[in-house]
Amino acid sequence: MVDTIKWIDGNREAGNPKVMILDQRLLPHTTAYIECTDYRQVVDCIKTLAIRGAPAIGIAAAMGIALAAYAIAASDVKEFTARLSTAIGDLLNSRPTAVNIQWAAERIQRLIANNKAMTVSAIKEMIAKEGVIILNEDIEINKAIGRVGADFIKDGDTVLTHCNAGALATGGYGTATAPIRTAIAQGKRVSVIADETRPILQGARLTAWELMQDNIPVTLIPDNAAGELMRRGEIDLCIVGTDRTVRNGDVANKIGTYSVAVLAKENGVPFYVAAPLSSIDFTINEGGDIPIEERPSHEVTNVFGRCEIAPKGVAVRNIAFDVTPAKYITLILTEKGAFKPEDIHTLDPNGQKGNI
Amino acid sequence: MVDTIKWIDGNREAGNPKVMILDQRLLPHTTAYIECTDYRQVVDCIKTLAIRGAPAIGIAAAMGIALAAYAIAASDVKEFTARLSTAIGDLLNSRPTAVNIQWAAERIQRLIANNKAMTVSAIKEMIAKEGVIILNEDIEINKAIGRVGADFIKDGDTVLTHCNAGALATGGYGTATAPIRTAIAQGKRVSVIADETRPILQGARLTAWELMQDNIPVTLIPDNAAGELMRRGEIDLCIVGTDRTVRNGDVANKIGTYSVAVLAKENGVPFYVAAPLSSIDFTINEGGDIPIEERPSHEVTNVFGRCEIAPKGVAVRNIAFDVTPAKYITLILTEKGAFKPEDIHTLDPNGQKGNI
Repeated sequence: MVDTIKWIDGNREAGNPKVMILDQRLLPHTTAYIECTDYRQVVDCIKTLAIRGAPAIGIAAAMGIALAAYAIAASDVKEFTARLSTAIGDLLNSRPTAVNIQWAAERIQRLIANNKAMTVSAIKEMIAKEGVIILNEDIEINKAIGRVGADFIKDGDTVLTHCNAGALATGGYGTATAPIRTAIAQGKRVSVIADETRPILQGARLTAWELMQDNIPVTLIPDNAAGELMRRGEIDLCIVGTDRTVRNGDVANKIGTYSVAVLAKENGVPFYVAAPLSSIDFTINEGGDIPIEERPSHEVTNVFGRCEIAPKGVAVRNIAFDVTPAKYITLILTEKGAFKPEDIHTLDPNGQKGNI
Repeated sequence: MVDTIKWIDGNREAGNPKVMILDQRLLPHTTAYIECTDYRQVVDCIKTLAIRGAPAIGIAAAMGIALAAYAIAASDVKEFTARLSTAIGDLLNSRPTAVNIQWAAERIQRLIANNKAMTVSAIKEMIAKEGVIILNEDIEINKAIGRVGADFIKDGDTVLTHCNAGALATGGYGTATAPIRTAIAQGKRVSVIADETRPILQGARLTAWELMQDNIPVTLIPDNAAGELMRRGEIDLCIVGTDRTVRNGDVANKIGTYSVAVLAKENGVPFYVAAPLSSIDFTINEGGDIPIEERPSHEVTNVFGRCEIAPKGVAVRNIAFDVTPAKYITLILTEKGAFKPEDIHTLDPNGQKGNI
């Protein structure tokens, strides 16, 4: 698989440090990278969906902060930190629903706070290293989710997934795709049904593409067909990713996830959510409080920004995410094990306060 | 509103009789008619979705039979009828799920059988007139459905519809849109949420377009958003059309209808099916026996036949219709009144035999 995102250290030969971001807007037709030397390019990549997927944009945020850090000419740590906060603010404001940007920013802010005695130059290097550590950890976390989730996939199973929570949504290996990859590595025969996932078609453009790259059997369907296939008994389980999961086990994910979950419950199909801890927001008690992004109309009315599918001037609602209430979720698969949604709060690293 | 389909009598000036079919594949960008002088062009229009919608393809089938009739040079009624059966067979095989083609063909076959004593030339004229009668009756039937269905729409309601069961799917006025049009004519404020309806996008291309033509407030959404809007309480009722409804009240309609129905039930939103009698098949007891069309992959992978959205060579399932079991349906709206799905069999004109 191609890399979703890469950090390139600055040096005399390579010039300034860079973040290379695979431009996912061009997939599956073109594989091209955007070379970001300014954190504002990273912000733009996140906003315009060149890079997307909760874990991937967390990594991008960390690396964006590192780019911003290198651009600050200050020798005083306090001044450096103050100036860095502008970049962090811009990254935090780039997309509202996925909690991973916040998670990455807080991780780097803690790191700086814990190392105030270092020189600014050493802090810059430390931030850059942290971005790479987050990327590598993400892949390991996904493999752990894969080991946890593979237990729920039997030989011969057909797995439905929605949107892309695959390698392209992460540092690599994917979250929702991890149990599938691991089950296949264990010798099980597994095939995937990929919802195309309108309006941005991440299922058609990204999930189908990345699974085909790795020779994993995949069949593409319009989102409308998922229910009928479940009714016919042709889907054994569903696994999706999440942009933000909260204390009571409610899950925000790509628009359409709620529908898949309701249809799964109605048809007795288990519905799993693959959620690295970085995507769980223990500060929010229930799904109703998750900020839900609404995006521009043209994403619905224009396919690939050039194929107009609707009458000019039509009113559009483009709600980018929905909330699946915990009651529809069989288990949440994390790197720490599989949890019933009502037990997910026990993973809160800050203990039991604010428990539901 | 533009006409979906028109019959033009043959005469010295106009030449051969013609069926003018609005090419719905080009909507909403272009309004153009296909001039059919041969029934095989009508078959092609039906197969390729230039004309679609159960009532509309019933009308097209009747008019196609009339074109075929005029092309037969036979003075013997028996020979004429035998030769006409080839055309009827081709029309019956054009699309399998909607029962209206069969309904129209049987109506014309009965008409011929009842008028064997007429000359071939008189029979031809009678068939052509019957096509126009079917078209005009269809509009009246839809208006009757509108009067029946408008009772279930309150002032201020927002109605979700799926696919296009509007004027373009019929001779005019629409089936699912009829109660909306009538309610508005009664002075109620009604707005419509149109599911875009992948893969062919009839909701985006046709429903949004025709409602905008008539200044009916409409908002386009990706199919994935219908569930979330119902969960938020933003949809008061759903009305859809049907391609074939059967004795036990199970309803075949555009893929995705089943999902809308399940989501409606889960959220306490009434779910109505607008079904002219011509779309009810009393010879089939339950939905499992309805033939369900699967269509080519390229309809999913290529938008408008030119915008490729998926990796080359990807496997695709393109199931064109699904079956909504009766238990999800609040009422079936017909020109004879509103019926619980379990009571729909009482409308069988051939009486109670084979009752469920």
